[in-house]
Amino acid sequence: MKKRVFTRPPMGWNSYDNYDTNVNEEQVLANARVMKEKLAQYGWEYVVVDIQWYAANTGSQRPEVQYIPFGQSNLDEYSRFWPDETKFPSSAGGKGFKPLADQLHAMGLKFGIHIMRGIPRQAAHEHRKVLGTDLTADLIADPASICRWNPDMYGVKNTAAGQAYYDSILRLYADWGVDYIKCDDICNTNMWPDGWHGADEMVMLRKAADKVERDIVISLSPGPALVEHSWHYAVNANLWRITDDLWDDWKLVKDMFTRCEKWQDHVRMGNYPDCDMLPLGHIGEVFGNGRESNLTEDEQKAMMTLWSLFRSPLMIGADLTRLDAQTLKLLTNRAVLDMNLEGQTPRQLERDDSHAVWLSEGEGQCFAALFNLSDDVQELTLPLDDIGSSFREAHELWTRRTSLIGDSLQTTVPPHGVAVFQLK
Amino acid sequence: MKKRVFTRPPMGWNSYDNYDTNVNEEQVLANARVMKEKLAQYGWEYVVVDIQWYAANTGSQRPEVQYIPFGQSNLDEYSRFWPDETKFPSSAGGKGFKPLADQLHAMGLKFGIHIMRGIPRQAAHEHRKVLGTDLTADLIADPASICRWNPDMYGVKNTAAGQAYYDSILRLYADWGVDYIKCDDICNTNMWPDGWHGADEMVMLRKAADKVERDIVISLSPGPALVEHSWHYAVNANLWRITDDLWDDWKLVKDMFTRCEKWQDHVRMGNYPDCDMLPLGHIGEVFGNGRESNLTEDEQKAMMTLWSLFRSPLMIGADLTRLDAQTLKLLTNRAVLDMNLEGQTPRQLERDDSHAVWLSEGEGQCFAALFNLSDDVQELTLPLDDIGSSFREAHELWTRRTSLIGDSLQTTVPPHGVAVFQLK
Amino acid sequence: MKKRVFTRPPMGWNSYDNYDTNVNEEQVLANARVMKEKLAQYGWEYVVVDIQWYAANTGSQRPEVQYIPFGQSNLDEYSRFWPDETKFPSSAGGKGFKPLADQLHAMGLKFGIHIMRGIPRQAAHEHRKVLGTDLTADLIADPASICRWNPDMYGVKNTAAGQAYYDSILRLYADWGVDYIKCDDICNTNMWPDGWHGADEMVMLRKAADKVERDIVISLSPGPALVEHSWHYAVNANLWRITDDLWDDWKLVKDMFTRCEKWQDHVRMGNYPDCDMLPLGHIGEVFGNGRESNLTEDEQKAMMTLWSLFRSPLMIGADLTRLDAQTLKLLTNRAVLDMNLEGQTPRQLERDDSHAVWLSEGEGQCFAALFNLSDDVQELTLPLDDIGSSFREAHELWTRRTSLIGDSLQTTVPPHGVAVFQLK
Amino acid sequence: MKKRVFTRPPMGWNSYDNYDTNVNEEQVLANARVMKEKLAQYGWEYVVVDIQWYAANTGSQRPEVQYIPFGQSNLDEYSRFWPDETKFPSSAGGKGFKPLADQLHAMGLKFGIHIMRGIPRQAAHEHRKVLGTDLTADLIADPASICRWNPDMYGVKNTAAGQAYYDSILRLYADWGVDYIKCDDICNTNMWPDGWHGADEMVMLRKAADKVERDIVISLSPGPALVEHSWHYAVNANLWRITDDLWDDWKLVKDMFTRCEKWQDHVRMGNYPDCDMLPLGHIGEVFGNGRESNLTEDEQKAMMTLWSLFRSPLMIGADLTRLDAQTLKLLTNRAVLDMNLEGQTPRQLERDDSHAVWLSEGEGQCFAALFNLSDDVQELTLPLDDIGSSFREAHELWTRRTSLIGDSLQTTVPPHGVAVFQLK
Repeated sequence: MKKRVFTRPPMGWNSYDNYDTNVNEEQVLANARVMKEKLAQYGWEYVVVDIQWYAANTGSQRPEVQYIPFGQSNLDEYSRFWPDETKFPSSAGGKGFKPLADQLHAMGLKFGIHIMRGIPRQAAHEHRKVLGTDLTADLIADPASICRWNPDMYGVKNTAAGQAYYDSILRLYADWGVDYIKCDDICNTNMWPDGWHGADEMVMLRKAADKVERDIVISLSPGPALVEHSWHYAVNANLWRITDDLWDDWKLVKDMFTRCEKWQDHVRMGNYPDCDMLPLGHIGEVFGNGRESNLTEDEQKAMMTLWSLFRSPLMIGADLTRLDAQTLKLLTNRAVLDMNLEGQTPRQLERDDSHAVWLSEGEGQCFAALFNLSDDVQELTLPLDDIGSSFREAHELWTRRTSLIGDSLQTTVPPHGVAVFQLK
Repeated sequence: MKKRVFTRPPMGWNSYDNYDTNVNEEQVLANARVMKEKLAQYGWEYVVVDIQWYAANTGSQRPEVQYIPFGQSNLDEYSRFWPDETKFPSSAGGKGFKPLADQLHAMGLKFGIHIMRGIPRQAAHEHRKVLGTDLTADLIADPASICRWNPDMYGVKNTAAGQAYYDSILRLYADWGVDYIKCDDICNTNMWPDGWHGADEMVMLRKAADKVERDIVISLSPGPALVEHSWHYAVNANLWRITDDLWDDWKLVKDMFTRCEKWQDHVRMGNYPDCDMLPLGHIGEVFGNGRESNLTEDEQKAMMTLWSLFRSPLMIGADLTRLDAQTLKLLTNRAVLDMNLEGQTPRQLERDDSHAVWLSEGEGQCFAALFNLSDDVQELTLPLDDIGSSFREAHELWTRRTSLIGDSLQTTVPPHGVAVFQLK
Repeated sequence: MKKRVFTRPPMGWNSYDNYDTNVNEEQVLANARVMKEKLAQYGWEYVVVDIQWYAANTGSQRPEVQYIPFGQSNLDEYSRFWPDETKFPSSAGGKGFKPLADQLHAMGLKFGIHIMRGIPRQAAHEHRKVLGTDLTADLIADPASICRWNPDMYGVKNTAAGQAYYDSILRLYADWGVDYIKCDDICNTNMWPDGWHGADEMVMLRKAADKVERDIVISLSPGPALVEHSWHYAVNANLWRITDDLWDDWKLVKDMFTRCEKWQDHVRMGNYPDCDMLPLGHIGEVFGNGRESNLTEDEQKAMMTLWSLFRSPLMIGADLTRLDAQTLKLLTNRAVLDMNLEGQTPRQLERDDSHAVWLSEGEGQCFAALFNLSDDVQELTLPLDDIGSSFREAHELWTRRTSLIGDSLQTTVPPHGVAVFQLK
Repeated sequence: MKKRVFTRPPMGWNSYDNYDTNVNEEQVLANARVMKEKLAQYGWEYVVVDIQWYAANTGSQRPEVQYIPFGQSNLDEYSRFWPDETKFPSSAGGKGFKPLADQLHAMGLKFGIHIMRGIPRQAAHEHRKVLGTDLTADLIADPASICRWNPDMYGVKNTAAGQAYYDSILRLYADWGVDYIKCDDICNTNMWPDGWHGADEMVMLRKAADKVERDIVISLSPGPALVEHSWHYAVNANLWRITDDLWDDWKLVKDMFTRCEKWQDHVRMGNYPDCDMLPLGHIGEVFGNGRESNLTEDEQKAMMTLWSLFRSPLMIGADLTRLDAQTLKLLTNRAVLDMNLEGQTPRQLERDDSHAVWLSEGEGQCFAALFNLSDDVQELTLPLDDIGSSFREAHELWTRRTSLIGDSLQTTVPPHGVAVFQLK
């Protein structure tokens, strides 16, 4: 048995950037409706409920703590989280996320959830049962394996009973109709000096996913993933974060170029190093910091271009119910999005502190992107030596202008901006 | 207010090396009786109950785990551990350790206990009260502050309510009649890369100790203490471990010479860098590995000499009820023990891989020790240049032989052994 | 301009493993003759003269030092090393390595040399000239940029005059007819904490190579290369060492599996992560440790299989004038060598401490290797799930036996050995 | 034999802060005359010539490099530097520094020089002789042991011939009449990851100093010294730098409090952890950055107080020929300077980010200093609990005002300033 392969990096929406720990069913559906209406035709399809959907009083101890420790979450007898019913009324009566998943599927969309590595601390302290084994949660939890930034879980020991726990949750999620799992505190367990404390649980999670019929994307967070372990990620997951949390700050976007440089050879069908969610549109509301994205339009285009060309997963952070025209345009540039289709391979040709050049090559298609990483307007030139001399025309995907290529092609790029060409 | 000063490093017995997590009242008293009868006249006085006196089923999951996680311990409503009554019957009826302390005091001895940094995990998960504050345990515990090797506690936040918790336990221990606290997981919090996660709690513990009338020795474990923070230890504690756990293995004893070299300038009245317990006599019984100490008699003499000269605390690990004649002799060499008296200052004169020379200077007294760290018999020479030329006689403390000092004094020292002279 | 691309990893012989710092012209030619006669038809073609061909008294201070410091080497007025004439008589009269290269080319072979990063210390201290610039060697050398293990050079500053020096040596080597440069102390400059002190000189070296007409392979040593800088190696070199020096010790061969795992995604046409020379046959003579390789025949087969499948460069360490029948057979298994042909892509399917499975996929060809990394005989099974179910036959390349594949294919593999199948 | 012991930390003047690599005889004598006239009566006595007195063209490649590499220095046949005669005319005719030392001694002053760890690179490359051994410089120099920031030397191997070299230079310096050697690149060899590459040469230097009759202070640079090796410094040197280069920047002065905290227990008679030179008065001239010290008068008082109380060596950086009245007053406060006399012991009582309290205790004398480390005026209070209650009066040493001590003593301290009291 081996991991599922998805031929294209997932595209969708994630609740975190705007709703923090507090998103509810009504909000999820409102965002989904916008996606269906305006975005789905361009390939956007996943709707992902992020962290702490299993707890009622999330957010009530802000600003002291983001995640309330030692609280009562909604747990079943088998040590598994269930959706909090005040947030997700349709889950009442033991239905879990199935009704919500059904609604999304009926809209032609897919449904994703966030989970944390491990088993709930509450289950361990209460010695709850684990489905498929006689051992109780206290005997499969590792009391020293915790997450640095979230207090909900203990890591699970790499034993048959530990595997049974992972099997039990994957089976539940498959039954609910989950299409996408964002598993957190596993890609880089930054509590521990080497960041590599989640390796066994990656395997347990993948083995559990192998056992269910449903195709579920396995996405690992947080980053930065450890490049020396690239094979382990590739064998056990579909996506893995190559960066810390990305927010709407040019410095973070610029830094992604060093990370993409490092990971480019690992992008291939089924393996998608992940540049993190797109902090576009209206975000930060429930963090107490609601705003339109601080990235300029040029920075947003540079980000969309790099993410698409690099074949990163694309997850929108915006509150879609407040989607403005400019952001909508950004998310629906079909030519830009096409760079992430099957068959394309990203490759960096040049990079220094002030610019980067990337190529996306595929059968019959070639794209070249000139990024201006500096704070000044720059003339940038296509390195035809590296690209090949057979191209005659260059069609810029954001301006939709076409130029002839002679001995070279120069173009003026604004600060933090991009020019991306389809070459013919 | 400032920390209590003790004029001599504590001498006593500790339950750990023989009884692991399982010592009980009868065993403590049996050992104490031997101490009173045979050792007390030489300065031995503390009787210390080591880890997990608050839990009943300790040891029952061996060999998988030493410390059972997520169990029920004996806790009061104020989140404080109390002695387990099956182990310590005299504590029944809410008396805590007072009856045991009273018995020991009546024998002319002193009473010590082991504690872990922080507040019980159980108290945090159960939201128990904290004496002297309206906040409950979940609000003063830090969910990410755990011990790597023991699952009992969460660290306490450095807040007024956190201080209240430390105040509440010190007051309880003072009421019980505790004379000595060995606080663990605080000197080097080896969970964290920098080992320095316990700094604030050292201050909270010391401030709590300042507030009680009783003179309580504050001893910090485990080691190695971080020499760059020597001042912080000195201000907040009486003793601090400069080493990992020491067992009956010559390599560990030999390694202590590098640690004593490093810490020697920090030994002064009231400040006692701690070389850890003496693994002498019969030890390891409850670990399932009962044995007479694997150290040879020469190695034991070298250890006793270094510990005494360096003014380390002296804590016997042996089961005193099985005390043999050779060990008894080792522990009752008054001249050797006198090197740790007030006024003496240890100083290393020479060290390489095969030998070390130490001096203990005080008003009117001078001792010099020649350690053979090699595996072969060696002739070692007193470096009179460094000691001063006024001495005429050298009295060896283990053989009780006296030699005249001419231009030099040479002596034959067995492998791993010592010759230690009182100079006159 | 961009780096030359070689469609197949180089195969050849290197003087180091047997001749240390002391190889001479006669020995080089004697080995080349064996290559021409017995190996060339299988693709072996490069003959590489390793370190210190420019110094006369090499080896004369052994065993104290391998490389004699502060000596007089054969330098021209432009700060460039020339072959020592006592070792390479044909170089006399200012002819350099041209006569030797000509002879090798006449035999249908190619010629390589070893160089060290930087400019000779001697040139810097003597303020010698640098071709193509007014600055002298003392002004382009960086006095703090040295090699940890060899005393011959100073690093070159990243300036126009520094580039002129690299240009001047590449032009000289091209004039001589050099086809392959093994540049040392540049891939991992292990003197410096981060190992990354040679980055600028990699670029200078590549730019200098771009400027000459001749196709010269650029090979970087020593390893381990730093995987987070994979892009920089790929842009500036053809080969780069992914390992420390490899010798005839199974532990080192086994460790290569972890390195190949890490680097597999970076193997592509023109980019050849390098597993180092093959310590086969008679080696170590001039090191004072002459011997037949300590690797068993099974270990040698495992090594040859991994290196070929992984598309590592293949450089024989043996004294070819003493080539035995078994080694010859090992080096002339055409089917094994074919795995490194253009179009093949290596991929690890499984690895743990006791076994590894690798695939080499190409258009129309598929190979699968089952490595037994343990010390016991093992039954290993082809993971057909990962390989695809269309294959019917498996032809083992060392035994030349063919098996039918049913639902699975199991095979017995000796300790440290391999079974490698061409699948049809 | 053991190291010389000096009962008080040295006080004097050093050429570096104002004259960089270029100081000459005339300037040295001009500064010395001011010292004799205005400062000597307060204990100032050492006159130290800092780096590169052996080279003629120093400073001529600024600003590209501070230290010119690969140049010709003034070397004798035995690989030893001699003063450059253009800078030091009195050294002509093979007299070396003797005439200058004689002049300083005649003024009642003492003479110091700066040296670098090791043997000149030039001597190694030229295979010069070494006095007292048949081996030449190339055979005792370690080609991989260099200084990161200065290109003059190679480290010396720890062999008999290496010791002969150190013996030969110490004998020469003793013959010249040198009283103080500042040996650089030895206390923290920051080229190497662990900073501890100079350990053997510390021992060789000390052994060489033991062999000469003359009392020569051995001072080690640069810092920060490694506190875990405190014993090694104490055995082999009289002073050792606990800090990187200190300049006239409050951040650096404030940072010294963390360093003094760490090293306080190591201050004792003969052992003087060194806070580096005092960047007071007119400095930076030859660096091309001549200025009056950027430290405010309050910051200067805080610095003088900490250095004196801590018993740091005191070396003036100012151009004494331009000595202004305020700086003169600062350097001649006898009561402040008395804190560094024999018998005083420094001890930190309190420190946080905004203040520090230090005590200097001796027989019959007690000083207490309240430092305001914050940017605002503060009321600071003497912690009488820690000091003892027997004092009745406090005499402030900078304002010369006396206060009565009641239950407490509060005082207003300006930002970055100090109040330092003699208690009676």
